[in-house]
Amino acid sequence: MRLRNKPWAKDYIDAHPQYIIPTPEKRKGDWKGVFQNDNPIHIEVGTGKGQFLIGMAKQNPHINYIGIEAYQSVIVSALEKLIEEDLPNLKLLDVNAENLTDYFAQDEIDRVYLNFSDPWPKPRHEKRRLTYKTFLEQYEEVLVKNGEIHFKTDNQGLFEYSLQSFSAYGMLLTFVSLDLHKLEDENNIMTEYEEKFSEKGNRIYRCEVQFK
Amino acid sequence: MRLRNKPWAKDYIDAHPQYIIPTPEKRKGDWKGVFQNDNPIHIEVGTGKGQFLIGMAKQNPHINYIGIEAYQSVIVSALEKLIEEDLPNLKLLDVNAENLTDYFAQDEIDRVYLNFSDPWPKPRHEKRRLTYKTFLEQYEEVLVKNGEIHFKTDNQGLFEYSLQSFSAYGMLLTFVSLDLHKLEDENNIMTEYEEKFSEKGNRIYRCEVQFK
Repeated sequence: MRLRNKPWAKDYIDAHPQYIIPTPEKRKGDWKGVFQNDNPIHIEVGTGKGQFLIGMAKQNPHINYIGIEAYQSVIVSALEKLIEEDLPNLKLLDVNAENLTDYFAQDEIDRVYLNFSDPWPKPRHEKRRLTYKTFLEQYEEVLVKNGEIHFKTDNQGLFEYSLQSFSAYGMLLTFVSLDLHKLEDENNIMTEYEEKFSEKGNRIYRCEVQFK
Repeated sequence: MRLRNKPWAKDYIDAHPQYIIPTPEKRKGDWKGVFQNDNPIHIEVGTGKGQFLIGMAKQNPHINYIGIEAYQSVIVSALEKLIEEDLPNLKLLDVNAENLTDYFAQDEIDRVYLNFSDPWPKPRHEKRRLTYKTFLEQYEEVLVKNGEIHFKTDNQGLFEYSLQSFSAYGMLLTFVSLDLHKLEDENNIMTEYEEKFSEKGNRIYRCEVQFK
């Protein structure tokens, strides 16, 4: 993703604490309180400009969504969309995914979405991939028992790596598609990337995996 | 595969018991005796016209290979090639893969190859796919501990199904490629199908999975 410097991003984020939750570590264990209901909570790690999660939140009003994006200059685009839509079941966090367990208690999350994560193709950057085992440990910690990761990407190398990483971690592969748009699933909400890449005829890979 | 009726096939097979082993159930537990050495034994289930296994046997003289093909009208093509090459480390069996444990003892086999197996795409034919759980049970039974299946196919649906079936069985995915010929692995021996399909630009999928 191209990152533009947006010096106004921080002030804009601080001005909307009802959408981008400040000091989320204080809400650890109390996210049902934030949403003021008992609905399941799905998070997206690396939410980018938010198109996927805003589409999901509109499609599924009885699920709560939390989008996590470390780059303030990126998350403000999601924030602008969210202000416009004013969805009660979607919140954003401008924090780093490395510290998920600082923000969520054990069993607090029902599903993790990873969409078009940075592939970090160089072997020496393996540990930064969001499907590396240290990240899987964090997802497992915050997810309910038998919690799922739903993952999609256009990057062949990252998908191959991730299938092996999930398997090595002992996870169960419950669904896999090696050409998602051949399925023509009308419930599939596309990310910004996905629209761009699939228009070019690139394949989108998708899988669902479950912790045992 | 197109099946031509070859009325001479049975006699031709019977005339070459040194290559196509008759009554293989009598050799159960004694395949090292058949090859007269202690080298590892790799089998291919559904060996077709034999191009893959003949290439492998030539490339790896210190591994013994057994090709299994139920159709006599097909296995005779492999037999013709084998007579010409006269490889001491390759034998053929004209038997059905459903009864593997009738022919091999526990831990007798070191690796199973599945190449371009019939995809049986209809859900009601799932049980016929060579990666269905009842077949996996047989492979596990005849393989050594931590034995591997090496699987390749151009059929997207069969590959997706098989990844899920391996995972549900608790197997470990140690390697996966979603576009094998991009790798340009010069050790890759192509089957007849593979040559034809990859010339058309079709993707070949490949994986290695291990029993735990």
